[in-house]
Amino acid sequence: MPHFKITLAYDGTPYHGWQIQPGLATVQGTLAEAIHRIADERVLPQGSGRTDTGVHALGQVASVTVVAPIPAERLHRALNHCLPNSIRVLGVEETPETFHARHSAVSKTYEYRIFPAHGPNAICPPTLAPFVWPCPWPLEIDAMQCAAARVIGTHDFTAFAAAPSSAEDTPATYVRTITHSQWEAKGDLLLYRVSGSGFLHRMVRNLVGTFVQCCAGRRDPNSIAALLASRDRTLAGPTAPPTGLFLVSVDYPPFKSSASQHVEDEEAMQEKASY
Amino acid sequence: MPHFKITLAYDGTPYHGWQIQPGLATVQGTLAEAIHRIADERVLPQGSGRTDTGVHALGQVASVTVVAPIPAERLHRALNHCLPNSIRVLGVEETPETFHARHSAVSKTYEYRIFPAHGPNAICPPTLAPFVWPCPWPLEIDAMQCAAARVIGTHDFTAFAAAPSSAEDTPATYVRTITHSQWEAKGDLLLYRVSGSGFLHRMVRNLVGTFVQCCAGRRDPNSIAALLASRDRTLAGPTAPPTGLFLVSVDYPPFKSSASQHVEDEEAMQEKASY
Repeated sequence: MPHFKITLAYDGTPYHGWQIQPGLATVQGTLAEAIHRIADERVLPQGSGRTDTGVHALGQVASVTVVAPIPAERLHRALNHCLPNSIRVLGVEETPETFHARHSAVSKTYEYRIFPAHGPNAICPPTLAPFVWPCPWPLEIDAMQCAAARVIGTHDFTAFAAAPSSAEDTPATYVRTITHSQWEAKGDLLLYRVSGSGFLHRMVRNLVGTFVQCCAGRRDPNSIAALLASRDRTLAGPTAPPTGLFLVSVDYPPFKSSASQHVEDEEAMQEKASY
Repeated sequence: MPHFKITLAYDGTPYHGWQIQPGLATVQGTLAEAIHRIADERVLPQGSGRTDTGVHALGQVASVTVVAPIPAERLHRALNHCLPNSIRVLGVEETPETFHARHSAVSKTYEYRIFPAHGPNAICPPTLAPFVWPCPWPLEIDAMQCAAARVIGTHDFTAFAAAPSSAEDTPATYVRTITHSQWEAKGDLLLYRVSGSGFLHRMVRNLVGTFVQCCAGRRDPNSIAALLASRDRTLAGPTAPPTGLFLVSVDYPPFKSSASQHVEDEEAMQEKASY
């Protein structure tokens, strides 16, 4: 039975997040439905993690096993034929069956995009609005970068985690390792890139909401260490809107596959999707 | 009673077109609701014309009279405060009460954006898909330009008009004058710009659907003159999808206003909104 790694990009706007839910359009459900149409099998692709309603992906990864002996390249083309334009498959690889999109992941990278919309003349074009946070407050990239640098390393991120919605959603640990945390001005936008071993629910959006407060003297950028130590969510900033958030990529250890591979140039795709 | 010209940009994706309809989200209805919240008046802004579901605008124009003595600049800021991010007001001008967004218009410009998605490796980024037609057929810009040049001038465009949905929607004449009709390759996209005295329902999308057929030998680009002469809609191509269509601007004769003006740089805005 072939086992596949599927890399996909999506516009999260029309979906109620990644995770399948009865009666609602979700990315996982739409992908499962496409596989059903192609292979006549009911399977549930496992994602590297959930994305919330309105959050986008440039390189989400899913793993799935199908019974039909379908080549990776044919599955790739058939998926892009069946899926709506809001979901595109960037690559399909046949993998060892030990590969699991979530359990095998060793790091993830997210990007958060802000359109600075402070002041009456800063109008965010409506075609850009679904893919940024049109932020109405004054922003200072140096202050945000100062704050962002403080989260690099291994920390308990309880202060930046959403409260779990159920006991089974409670993480075993709130400790995560952040390896990259950087703001960059690019064109009209301010971009925040963060990479790490893993991320708690809403962690990136809570970090961004807090970094934005570190401008115009509203919060001291040097207070992030104390905020982490507090482990108190009520002391951090508000959750930034989902529209600005992109899951950029998920990293895995290399695996050797004896089967044919068919992977697009994901970097080029991500470059294209940048605006 | 102040009378206003309102210039606005919108993402048509979440709207059932411009025209107000009970129980449905429309651009006209959303604008009327915002004015109601600001001025506590029930008024219906008149657009330069309707846009269909999914069609976007970079420079739609509406005219409206309100009773409240509200300055143009204040109305502008209040509208952008009240409206969703999918609709942005680019300018508000106080005008003579003779100004009417539809009746006073002397020409309009539309742009149609195609992402060439022919072949398995041409993947349209999902963040771009709501604002283009990811066209799956082979395209030849020279052939499309050859065809597009044939519609410049004054012609009966019956072959490119949607059938009227009711007697009152039937135009008095199907004759229109096209002053500009040009394809251009820009970045990853093929852009079609067309200006004219006015446009019949779905005329731009029907032109684009026909131009696209003029590639790879499917239709002779030189047959457009005969197609116009036929006045037969069934002989023209299919209607291109709404997602690629933008109402770029509406032109009016100059008017002298004694009142204060507050207009953003619309050209700069349109440039920003280009991708």
